[in-house]
Amino acid sequence: MTTARHSGIAAASVENRDAPGPFLIVCEHASNRFPAAFGMLGLPAAARRAHIAWDPGALGLARALARRLSAPLVAAQVSRLIYDLNRPPHSPGAMTAKSETYEIAANAALSVAERQRRTEAVYLPFHAVLRAEIARRLAAGTPPVMVTVHSFTPVWFGKPRSVEFGVIHDADPSLAHAVVAEAKARTALDCRLNEPYSAADEVTHTLRLQATPYGLLNVMLEIRNDLIADAAAQEAMAERLAPVLTAALAKVREPRREAIA
Amino acid sequence: MTTARHSGIAAASVENRDAPGPFLIVCEHASNRFPAAFGMLGLPAAARRAHIAWDPGALGLARALARRLSAPLVAAQVSRLIYDLNRPPHSPGAMTAKSETYEIAANAALSVAERQRRTEAVYLPFHAVLRAEIARRLAAGTPPVMVTVHSFTPVWFGKPRSVEFGVIHDADPSLAHAVVAEAKARTALDCRLNEPYSAADEVTHTLRLQATPYGLLNVMLEIRNDLIADAAAQEAMAERLAPVLTAALAKVREPRREAIA
Repeated sequence: MTTARHSGIAAASVENRDAPGPFLIVCEHASNRFPAAFGMLGLPAAARRAHIAWDPGALGLARALARRLSAPLVAAQVSRLIYDLNRPPHSPGAMTAKSETYEIAANAALSVAERQRRTEAVYLPFHAVLRAEIARRLAAGTPPVMVTVHSFTPVWFGKPRSVEFGVIHDADPSLAHAVVAEAKARTALDCRLNEPYSAADEVTHTLRLQATPYGLLNVMLEIRNDLIADAAAQEAMAERLAPVLTAALAKVREPRREAIA
Repeated sequence: MTTARHSGIAAASVENRDAPGPFLIVCEHASNRFPAAFGMLGLPAAARRAHIAWDPGALGLARALARRLSAPLVAAQVSRLIYDLNRPPHSPGAMTAKSETYEIAANAALSVAERQRRTEAVYLPFHAVLRAEIARRLAAGTPPVMVTVHSFTPVWFGKPRSVEFGVIHDADPSLAHAVVAEAKARTALDCRLNEPYSAADEVTHTLRLQATPYGLLNVMLEIRNDLIADAAAQEAMAERLAPVLTAALAKVREPRREAIA
């Protein structure tokens, strides 16, 4: 595992860097670390462990998928409450002052200097590391297929959510549609397209920033976090989802091959 | 002026970094330098001075525009024949083996390692510097308006070109349309939309990579290089084009203000 540091902060880690599979896995909300340079934002431990600080279970699932798919994994090293890597720097959600029912008072009325400091210490190096992994593969003539791995809370503003596996797309829906079809065919998961969020909720920044400009096939996965609460559950979920991703990619690539033949 | 270095190579320079104007000027083909790490690709001096190696006059015009518009300028420091910063790493044009009537034999059959080395030494640091300038302004709540400045040769495959000022857009044509309208109203230049190139020619990579993901207003300018052959001509052209850009931006922003009122 290698990490990229900026001003003493590690913003991204890269695992399985030279893995030969077609996918590149990304986990923007992998971590609930609050580096000393930013402090704990006055939050109690319970809030720092909650889904507002990170996507619980997402990193374990992402690693288990990366292993099965022989894929590199780029993962965040800093809590989304310091900087949400799936938001651009001018979005209020990049350094949010409110998440679901939680107030993050330390993020209210941030100075421009502090917004720039977090952008330069967390957002830019994370996305530079991810871009470098993409560019290295492009230069080798093997454009990666980008899969971002997220988790969502089973109860949102007091309401239970029944969706278990959300599949979200941005400009190019082809891989997302194929993943939904394969998940329905191969698993009993309650799988839905563009739930519990969609691009309209501004949750597709990483896809727009990193995949769309290069025409990479891409999809964002959202798994309900009670289904990936421990290592065994994460392994079991990866065991279900890895064949879904492989089959979906084959389906998307199939008509392209036919079009050439 | 600050420069970003990678493996001893300066890929980008930033001038007027803290200039307060609304525009951010970009010049991807500013330079015909061939750093020692890459050598001169076996090209004679005449080829290294020709439009295939850079956009002659573009840097002088970009600087003169930046001064008049109080704009920061991000400019390349390396010849486009080492790496064309307006192309993604998997494009044959990124490290082209042929440009107009010139053969660049040293770029034929480049190894993957060499393509990756140039991508990492030139493409990634240039676009990281540009991204950082954009992100700093986004974090401050002042999204920049991106203008890329290019020049084109007056004779192409033996044929003279009569267009003098080309205005090219990618996904968002709003600023390009306004620039054409203002150029026609305010100058006698032969100004045309999406000439001598358009997005279909894959010349809008920088717009797609840097402006579109953030929803920045953006436009690519192409000036025939015989009109900006020396410093005096570059200053005179900037004197004509700066008011065009300012008026075009005002026009684009006007209906937005009305929509709010």
